[in-house]
Amino acid sequence: MTFILKILGSNSAAPAHNRHQTSQLLNIQNQLFLVDCGEGTQLQLAKYHVKINRINNIFISHLHGDHFFGLMGLISTMHLFGRKKKLNIFGPPGLAEIITLQLRYSESNLNFKINMHELQNATPAVIFENEFMTVENIPLSHRVFCNGFLFKEKPKPRKINKDLLPENFSLKNIVKLKKGEDIVDDKGKVLYKNEALTLPPKKSHSYAYCSDTKYREEILPQIKQVDLLYHESTFMNDMLDRAKQTFHSTAHQAAIIATKAQASQLILGHYSVRYKDLTPLLQEAQAIFPNAVLGKEGEDIVLAK
Amino acid sequence: MTFILKILGSNSAAPAHNRHQTSQLLNIQNQLFLVDCGEGTQLQLAKYHVKINRINNIFISHLHGDHFFGLMGLISTMHLFGRKKKLNIFGPPGLAEIITLQLRYSESNLNFKINMHELQNATPAVIFENEFMTVENIPLSHRVFCNGFLFKEKPKPRKINKDLLPENFSLKNIVKLKKGEDIVDDKGKVLYKNEALTLPPKKSHSYAYCSDTKYREEILPQIKQVDLLYHESTFMNDMLDRAKQTFHSTAHQAAIIATKAQASQLILGHYSVRYKDLTPLLQEAQAIFPNAVLGKEGEDIVLAK
Repeated sequence: MTFILKILGSNSAAPAHNRHQTSQLLNIQNQLFLVDCGEGTQLQLAKYHVKINRINNIFISHLHGDHFFGLMGLISTMHLFGRKKKLNIFGPPGLAEIITLQLRYSESNLNFKINMHELQNATPAVIFENEFMTVENIPLSHRVFCNGFLFKEKPKPRKINKDLLPENFSLKNIVKLKKGEDIVDDKGKVLYKNEALTLPPKKSHSYAYCSDTKYREEILPQIKQVDLLYHESTFMNDMLDRAKQTFHSTAHQAAIIATKAQASQLILGHYSVRYKDLTPLLQEAQAIFPNAVLGKEGEDIVLAK
Repeated sequence: MTFILKILGSNSAAPAHNRHQTSQLLNIQNQLFLVDCGEGTQLQLAKYHVKINRINNIFISHLHGDHFFGLMGLISTMHLFGRKKKLNIFGPPGLAEIITLQLRYSESNLNFKINMHELQNATPAVIFENEFMTVENIPLSHRVFCNGFLFKEKPKPRKINKDLLPENFSLKNIVKLKKGEDIVDDKGKVLYKNEALTLPPKKSHSYAYCSDTKYREEILPQIKQVDLLYHESTFMNDMLDRAKQTFHSTAHQAAIIATKAQASQLILGHYSVRYKDLTPLLQEAQAIFPNAVLGKEGEDIVLAK
């Protein structure tokens, strides 16, 4: 039931101060999801002992190089490491063309299939779904077409209270209980109320990744009460004009979004090269939203393990 | 009068064992030339404190990702660091298209001009020349169109023997002496033989970069008596079949090329991921060509400083 976010790259634009360009790895129920893939992401994954061929779904927010220049290298290494499984890539129009062109010139025939899912919507939609979770795109406002991503676990099964379970209770009925159903006889008469034999399910977690974007309140309804919010904070608020001009946000603005969204926790990131010491950014955010932390490369943010 | 080679990346295909993909930096008379640019080259350049905007000429051998996936990131960071000077890129057809496509989708307007020099020749030619050196392409045999590069200093000026120089000797005549000319009067009569007032010039150095290629004796006339030869040695000779199949060379073959070319020194590189310990490759090469060394990242090979 893992729900763990690992920051692989935390810097904006160019690598600096031992910080790399944007990439994150999300482990949800032991499935690995890669979010953005700046140059050197495969080196970061190797550094943190992540088996790259465990990643089956990659989400690219937009086509600025600091968010995707590591993708071709990662794909190549997946191939060299013997990947056979298909790889899903969700990203903006153009990404498929960029990948295809480079594969063509290198005369590479990958041993696995890439399923490109081009994101074109200007509105939120479910773009990925499996048995236990969904991913939605979060339309953002940047200089080029850009989406964040909302990862949401579905409601988990109710827990059976084994102490109260009658003997010889059938497996079929246990499945019903886990789904939250009552146990009824042929005529529809309730034999056991669900609540009498079950406990509430484990919490379902959610994570919203919002980079790159200017301050944008339109995202609030979609990320309402999210457990974990990553919001870019390229600048501090004394550079608000620069933030507006470049369609980025300040740490102050990230904290306002976290507050208005009633998020449980805020992670900062996408730091400008100009900030070597990040403490002032953290302080600026915490003044508004106390449960803000700095996204730091290699560190895990664990919601469930 | 520097002539220094720095290995930035020494591995083939994928990064492994703390080795990066191919890239080299050549400092000739304080001008910096970048040869190939695998993913993470800009990180390596930063690690070794190289100011990236001192690089004005980049040479790309071929369009396999381990030789150029770091190029877009380097170009972006040059832009972010305020580059205004034009950048020359020498590489195979297709590279310009790959760069242009990615700049278009990122809606980036670089503050500097890229001069793309597409290499199409199947024969050696001078592709770059300045006042003190030339660069020639070295046609190689790989799975895709591939060139090595031969860097050659031009003959240097003869050195004035100040002890023997007559008083009030004109600057104009000194320039003539440096060029190797005699000093003659109006009627053509020799007043001073050049050798009487000068000493031989400093040595002019040469460096041949040969990666990626199968064993190819056709390169020998061009690289004859080169001072420094880098020749790829992806495999050891027990994997000769694999080398042939993939159009790569073994350490043994690299040493034979060095011997037949009468090179002064051989540098090995482009190591397969399968070799963690490189000593056996070095031993295999040294058995044929004693002055072979392993190319190691961060190390300088200094011909003149």
